[in-house]
Amino acid sequence: MPVLHTVLSPKLLDLYNLENSIVVIIDVFRATSTIASALYNGAERVIPVAGVEECITLGKELNAITAGERDGKIIEGLLHGNSPSEYNSDFISGKTLVLTTTNGTKMLHMSLERGAEEIITGSFPNLNSVCNYLIDSQKDVILACSGWKDKFNIEDTLFAGAIIENVQNFFTIQCDSSLMAQNLFKSHHRDLKNFITKTTHWHRLSQYGLQEDMLFCVTENNADVLPYYDKVDKSLIIKKLNY
Amino acid sequence: MPVLHTVLSPKLLDLYNLENSIVVIIDVFRATSTIASALYNGAERVIPVAGVEECITLGKELNAITAGERDGKIIEGLLHGNSPSEYNSDFISGKTLVLTTTNGTKMLHMSLERGAEEIITGSFPNLNSVCNYLIDSQKDVILACSGWKDKFNIEDTLFAGAIIENVQNFFTIQCDSSLMAQNLFKSHHRDLKNFITKTTHWHRLSQYGLQEDMLFCVTENNADVLPYYDKVDKSLIIKKLNY
Repeated sequence: MPVLHTVLSPKLLDLYNLENSIVVIIDVFRATSTIASALYNGAERVIPVAGVEECITLGKELNAITAGERDGKIIEGLLHGNSPSEYNSDFISGKTLVLTTTNGTKMLHMSLERGAEEIITGSFPNLNSVCNYLIDSQKDVILACSGWKDKFNIEDTLFAGAIIENVQNFFTIQCDSSLMAQNLFKSHHRDLKNFITKTTHWHRLSQYGLQEDMLFCVTENNADVLPYYDKVDKSLIIKKLNY
Repeated sequence: MPVLHTVLSPKLLDLYNLENSIVVIIDVFRATSTIASALYNGAERVIPVAGVEECITLGKELNAITAGERDGKIIEGLLHGNSPSEYNSDFISGKTLVLTTTNGTKMLHMSLERGAEEIITGSFPNLNSVCNYLIDSQKDVILACSGWKDKFNIEDTLFAGAIIENVQNFFTIQCDSSLMAQNLFKSHHRDLKNFITKTTHWHRLSQYGLQEDMLFCVTENNADVLPYYDKVDKSLIIKKLNY
């Protein structure tokens, strides 16, 4: 059986071999939830970029929507924020979104540099698509939690645990990070929307009134598509599943 | 109130400020359990060293007992292994133990280099002494899980959770690592000796027949002293508590 590992922080990524693996980038609050929502609502593609300058330049070049936040506010020079609710279909359908975020984008680019064979993004809104793709692919898997400025965070770990709970019969899963993530999810999946309010990130984003946004980000399958990273086009597009 | 943080791997230590803090080095399987046992059974001091050569040289110089294992076997050139059961009082009383281990020693030296004000070592066998000292000191605390070759491990995290469960009313504890550790411990403290058998490290050390050893290492307060690092003497000695 293929092997599944969980990586709890970008700082731990270099302890794992990504070659021949599918890497699932996880940034629940809120990058990968926003990516799923934008694509689900008809965005043509989402281009994740590391820096603000690159975001602005690429946005002009492609006549695209630029988005990014720091400390809960839209970054100067960009058009939109990092909230899934901003990307309804009337607004985003058929468009390109260029997105810069602190943690998820970093993990994605690190995974690329370290030779990941395939990269997809995951969050509660697209849990089913991620699990179906992993089971169907029969390749080794790395669940890559983006954390917060290299620190461990609970919401990404909970989502890794949700994946493991769904795919465990199809993988060899022996690492302690995965065992812990699955345990944490099993302990709290019934009170997820209460438990999540105890996390550091909830407290930080609540200061900006983003509670509704975060509750959306921990709701399963409300934007259930598979964002797949196209290495040539350097963008995330929907991968259609054959089932 | 002073602040408590949990660090889940040596690779994450540089994200935290150790100045003015007490750092608790945690390496449940088995360095910090062995240190507690040796001191509890009368060892004069324990000198943790990084390398085998240094261990041999210092052992000769001090006419001390040298100890260290790799892959469950005593390292060539050293006299003893890394099992708490080897250090009964008939054997260790009044002696100096020079100990080299893979993970705990590394975390201790990293913490020293990063300016930790005080360093103590913790494990289930000396849980009470650690908690009493932390509560009494009223300083900021870093619970430093040594992990396994920089990876997260469950047994060190469980012990961090056990400390948090005991001292939570005396500290501000807001980081997700601490919240997760406490949750994991609360979920499993009643079936700890069963849950621990599911971990990676249990599987690895079971190959060498060390199950009894590991069960000792997850038993609370059976070697309840406080190993305190003396920066001048570069060794761990018992710190007497005034209560």
